[in-house]
Amino acid sequence: MTQILSAAPVRKKITKDLKSECVYLKENGVVPYLKVLLVGNNPSSVIYTNSKKKYCEKIGAKCDIISLNENVHAKQFLDIIENINNDSDVHGCIIQLPLPPHLAHLDIGKLVSSQKDIDGFHPENLYALMSNRDLENHFISCTPKGIVSLLTEYGFQIAGKKVTIIGRSMIVGKPLACLFTNLDATVTLCHSKTHDLHEISKSCDILVSAVGIPNLIDESFLSDKKNQIVIDVGMNSDSSGNLCGDVDFEKVKDLVYAITPVPGGVGPMTIISLMQNLLQASKKRLSL
Amino acid sequence: MTQILSAAPVRKKITKDLKSECVYLKENGVVPYLKVLLVGNNPSSVIYTNSKKKYCEKIGAKCDIISLNENVHAKQFLDIIENINNDSDVHGCIIQLPLPPHLAHLDIGKLVSSQKDIDGFHPENLYALMSNRDLENHFISCTPKGIVSLLTEYGFQIAGKKVTIIGRSMIVGKPLACLFTNLDATVTLCHSKTHDLHEISKSCDILVSAVGIPNLIDESFLSDKKNQIVIDVGMNSDSSGNLCGDVDFEKVKDLVYAITPVPGGVGPMTIISLMQNLLQASKKRLSL
Repeated sequence: MTQILSAAPVRKKITKDLKSECVYLKENGVVPYLKVLLVGNNPSSVIYTNSKKKYCEKIGAKCDIISLNENVHAKQFLDIIENINNDSDVHGCIIQLPLPPHLAHLDIGKLVSSQKDIDGFHPENLYALMSNRDLENHFISCTPKGIVSLLTEYGFQIAGKKVTIIGRSMIVGKPLACLFTNLDATVTLCHSKTHDLHEISKSCDILVSAVGIPNLIDESFLSDKKNQIVIDVGMNSDSSGNLCGDVDFEKVKDLVYAITPVPGGVGPMTIISLMQNLLQASKKRLSL
Repeated sequence: MTQILSAAPVRKKITKDLKSECVYLKENGVVPYLKVLLVGNNPSSVIYTNSKKKYCEKIGAKCDIISLNENVHAKQFLDIIENINNDSDVHGCIIQLPLPPHLAHLDIGKLVSSQKDIDGFHPENLYALMSNRDLENHFISCTPKGIVSLLTEYGFQIAGKKVTIIGRSMIVGKPLACLFTNLDATVTLCHSKTHDLHEISKSCDILVSAVGIPNLIDESFLSDKKNQIVIDVGMNSDSSGNLCGDVDFEKVKDLVYAITPVPGGVGPMTIISLMQNLLQASKKRLSL
């Protein structure tokens, strides 16, 4: 019987911890405070942004969504981030992606200061992850962190495992490759130019798809031993406009040992990691 | 007949280019200037440092070796680097590794300013490499850059190839994985905790060993198709005290398509890359 790696029980457990930590922080005069920058009104972005705000409030943290017009001038956008970077009441700041084309030239990873970059996109944070050094004082990218939390909470060992990651983005594929390597897994990072993608996928213990192509992963990517764990990072729309992953869940679910659902798998884990990072940033304020 | 990937012809060609660039820079008032910090008198470090100085002088650049006592205080060491960072006549600075144990706690990658870090160890430079963004204004780590130069100069294609790297250091394994990925190769990063190392090595097109274990790689790591390229990054001493690589050259040389020798392969390419980075840093001065 295939194990479905739902985020729900993990979320329940971690939410309890996060609530307690928020109470402790508030008793010590620190109210965890997140600012989210939302440019334009992309429907998915609005939904994701609201989820983050709702979860912040659930655990007792403060969250403001700053909604900017789709045509906001780059200078105004940068000024707002600069103000947040300088505002000592704010502990975390994230910029909801994607940004409109006229802001695409900005190197998003460098805009929010490394101390408030709870998305883990800043060079300082990625360097800590890559070098596996001083991670307690830096932020690990949320989706990679959430994937590892999910596997760990379900009791899976990571050291020694062969991991195939499909997708080499700076948000998922590359930092996840670093994180799994730090945890002693052996990672193969695949992408659109990879030959033998099917063979490489079949030979791994843990297969992660983060490419954004609906239902790409079917039975042809899997070993016939039914011993693989499949992690679906995709957040796509199918032809009917419904949320679907990169994995064809129905075709695959009986051929693997364990699989994450979409929705209800990696997505919620990403938000949980964001909140963990927000509280990590807030705790720093206690020692100042 | 196995192709021996000697650095010599590549070095000859690139040295000519570097000399011309030095002449041009000097005509425009910039004398490329490298400072090398050497702590203690580890015999290998002294040899490597002198090679770098000699090659600098060969192409017409200036190089000072700053030799510090093995017991130098951390503060004095850091002050010297700070002075170099602030000296506008100096274009590049490198710290010869390894450092003595009492300096091992320093995060070496962050000491030399990113603009003078021609070793490519600084977070800003590694971020550029990882994100494959703005590389013309950043420095690519020398050993990875040298390996890719060698393969390219010998006419090998990298895109689409399967690459196995053994060793996950911040100096070779990790930045080389990023560089090969940027060039559309599919990389598997292996290390001491990797299971199936033999199988993973056998199935690749390009095998890179950067672990520092004399003669580790023998015929058991190779495909029987004799179609692999083997890159030996090892700089080890054998039982007689002679320089040897990670690869057992005699056992392997007739079983592969191409192989780098030790000495005369990756080592000289690393110094060439360092000089290319020094001139890249010096050229920035022209536009100031």
